[in-house]
Amino acid sequence: MSVVTLNMIRLDRRRSASLQSQLYRQIRELIISGQVKAGMRLPSTRDLAGELAVSRNTIVYALDQLVAEGYLTSRIGSGIYVCDLRRERGSELGKPSASNTIRTAEQISKRVARLLSAGISPAYTSTQLRPFRPCQPAVDSFPLRNWNRARSKALRLPTRELFREGEPAGLLRLRQALSIYLQDARGVRCNAEQIVITAGTQQALSLVGAALISPGDSVWIENPGYLGARAAMLAAEAALVPIPVDADGITIPVAVNKKPRLIYVTPSRQFPLGVTMSLSRRLALLDYARRNDAFVIEDDYDSEFRYVDRPLPSLQGLTDDAQVIYTGSFSKVLFPSLRLGYLVLPEHLVEIFCKLKEIRDAASSTLDQATAAVFLEEGFFSTHLRRMRRLYRERLEVFLDEAHKHTAGWLRFSTIEAGMDAFGLLESGADDVEISQQLAAAGITVPPVSAYSLTPSAAGLLFGFTAFSAAQIRSAMKTIGRVIRD
Amino acid sequence: MSVVTLNMIRLDRRRSASLQSQLYRQIRELIISGQVKAGMRLPSTRDLAGELAVSRNTIVYALDQLVAEGYLTSRIGSGIYVCDLRRERGSELGKPSASNTIRTAEQISKRVARLLSAGISPAYTSTQLRPFRPCQPAVDSFPLRNWNRARSKALRLPTRELFREGEPAGLLRLRQALSIYLQDARGVRCNAEQIVITAGTQQALSLVGAALISPGDSVWIENPGYLGARAAMLAAEAALVPIPVDADGITIPVAVNKKPRLIYVTPSRQFPLGVTMSLSRRLALLDYARRNDAFVIEDDYDSEFRYVDRPLPSLQGLTDDAQVIYTGSFSKVLFPSLRLGYLVLPEHLVEIFCKLKEIRDAASSTLDQATAAVFLEEGFFSTHLRRMRRLYRERLEVFLDEAHKHTAGWLRFSTIEAGMDAFGLLESGADDVEISQQLAAAGITVPPVSAYSLTPSAAGLLFGFTAFSAAQIRSAMKTIGRVIRD
Repeated sequence: MSVVTLNMIRLDRRRSASLQSQLYRQIRELIISGQVKAGMRLPSTRDLAGELAVSRNTIVYALDQLVAEGYLTSRIGSGIYVCDLRRERGSELGKPSASNTIRTAEQISKRVARLLSAGISPAYTSTQLRPFRPCQPAVDSFPLRNWNRARSKALRLPTRELFREGEPAGLLRLRQALSIYLQDARGVRCNAEQIVITAGTQQALSLVGAALISPGDSVWIENPGYLGARAAMLAAEAALVPIPVDADGITIPVAVNKKPRLIYVTPSRQFPLGVTMSLSRRLALLDYARRNDAFVIEDDYDSEFRYVDRPLPSLQGLTDDAQVIYTGSFSKVLFPSLRLGYLVLPEHLVEIFCKLKEIRDAASSTLDQATAAVFLEEGFFSTHLRRMRRLYRERLEVFLDEAHKHTAGWLRFSTIEAGMDAFGLLESGADDVEISQQLAAAGITVPPVSAYSLTPSAAGLLFGFTAFSAAQIRSAMKTIGRVIRD
Repeated sequence: MSVVTLNMIRLDRRRSASLQSQLYRQIRELIISGQVKAGMRLPSTRDLAGELAVSRNTIVYALDQLVAEGYLTSRIGSGIYVCDLRRERGSELGKPSASNTIRTAEQISKRVARLLSAGISPAYTSTQLRPFRPCQPAVDSFPLRNWNRARSKALRLPTRELFREGEPAGLLRLRQALSIYLQDARGVRCNAEQIVITAGTQQALSLVGAALISPGDSVWIENPGYLGARAAMLAAEAALVPIPVDADGITIPVAVNKKPRLIYVTPSRQFPLGVTMSLSRRLALLDYARRNDAFVIEDDYDSEFRYVDRPLPSLQGLTDDAQVIYTGSFSKVLFPSLRLGYLVLPEHLVEIFCKLKEIRDAASSTLDQATAAVFLEEGFFSTHLRRMRRLYRERLEVFLDEAHKHTAGWLRFSTIEAGMDAFGLLESGADDVEISQQLAAAGITVPPVSAYSLTPSAAGLLFGFTAFSAAQIRSAMKTIGRVIRD
């Protein structure tokens, strides 16, 4: 059996770094450098403790950290195995920890050091907007004139109301407009008092982590899943538990090691696979959360753009109890550089989130909030949504036609009912990281699905189709066809 | 001797709450309810462990938490004493922990529970803009026309650059304009690459805490001092050490229990006392920080408005080494609801702060940043500063005249060289919390200085004079005179 002998590890009690931290670093180095290979099993913690002459707790804590960061994986009843980093960390593989991360490790907090070593950034950090970068709205079509009209109207409010520091919960007027929209369009059960305005979904998730997670709490995340959520939960020192996704959405494991404190889901459209969570799964998930006293975070990130049927109502609207926290954002429906999102909270949690928001950044821009409120009130928002839905549907059709022409037999797309991205499944055994890198070299941005996975998952590529014109889509697809043939 | 007998404490091993948490809560309740009085000494941890039949660690952890939160104070070689909550928590005294805080204590994270019980909000949380609320710019005089002009010019930038998600570090153009301004006006040594744009000073401080503080790290804060900094450091689980301020600024203790990891200061103008840190103290502080490997956070929160002489250059500019982190904000010079501030960082820390900013809220509004950049580039910013300096100086004169008329012999103001607030010293023995409450009942907002103190400090009141017209100042001062006479 391929059990690793960790006999190259040297712990030095005279060094200032703790034994635990020395052990953690040395194992990490062995994995990153490839000296210890993916799939290998580690000796038991008891054996390691004996061999290295340290306490078993020292071993357990070091390994726990490596598991949380995705270097190791623990299989119940079987042992601890080395993960496949290429699968896990996508194209970040080439650069282990940046040299200045190491240089400053002593200067930064333990928490952040851990966070930095975890490789949580998306694998596709090119700042250019190249096809088919996912999750990009068509900002060229943003109705700036109506936005400015809404802003002018907002500016008629009393100066002091607009320019003085705002409430941490956000502008009441926006919360009111939003509560109407969310009830109507998304079936969310809420009033304005349950809404806290945030600087986008990322802040919302980060606040959830800070408010509800104590270090070591178990958090279920979809696997593959959204990296921003993973980062926010890691920053809160959660123990992440990747949960597989099937055709009905996130699965509910039968045997659970430790009860989850929080379950993060994207029910309207699973990111990145695009699956809509079925009603039976929704009910089962709510039931599970209720029985286990867990919170469900419903990230309704791009439910606005549905091309087939009516949008499904939110998970939050299915239940009366205070188990679901709903979050959404204006980033993808208006424009990403506008930092406005929102949380819909059980009433008894509102005060706590406001307090945290206040400590973290006081409040969000009042003028932007007032502008967004008028934009909603005046109907500019729904007009814009309708226009974008039409545009995106057209782009989706071109995309699927071209994909069929150039990638048939090689990439499989299921029906795309909603959203801004298309998930293309590769044949089993394909290496999506390598294909993504080859395409990147040809000027095409399509992140590999394994970059969003903490454990091995199906290989595939993620295409954003909304920010690119028909001509851009055609030309980029031609390039993809050429790269595949070569 | 007034040693407390804690014989009313009942620990129950059958309850799900840990013994430590039970002990913590019960002592806290005894202090809040007044059953255990300020100044009383607690039995030794050894005695308590014996009496309550729990381990000494349980006692130590519970007491540590109460010390960190300001309920208890530990005097070396003497024992642990009950703090005077009225001094410490200002007018929050009347309401212990809100009922729904207790109700949800089990649902929120341990960190937040601790934060909520710490009473960190300013004592003057009335949302109205009544005289003499501190730190309020004259938003009625904000040059909206120039701001809109700058925005229109910014909107001529490519749509994709403005509307897509921005860089976590902030818009390069704004960082460039700022680096020039900060070098020129504040003597800060920096280039654009060292700047990270934040959502105001509060976010800057919160990022500093997250990046540099590990739980239990010692952080020196000025006493009295800025509550937002205290909150940010508490949220990072720092052990706060209140350090007295004298006429030269923060003092440097001779005997130190534990080296500080970080020292938070407001050298240009100490908040709330208004003292400018002398050059010799600045050098001593830098020397101390260098020798002890501590970071100094220089919060240059209102250095822009100086009425006498030229502004003093920044502390950061006095040193070549990477020990000082400089932070400032547009909130007070432009308008508070604009959420833009900045950090000037040692180069090797930039990457880490960007990562944290990305996880917390992705980035700040690009359009606001571009507008601010143009506002600086076009000279609108310096024109605005000049105009406000003139206006504020006029208001300060009216304020001091009126204060002299109505409060002479009762409040003492030293020369006010800069800033937006005036600190009035009360005669020793006066109860500033009570006076502040009486004035609040008469419609006047003047927070007591003890609300900003963790340990007993001089009694005084803090007056903001910049947001109120001469007529408002006169009328409010008349009211104060009347309240005093009664």
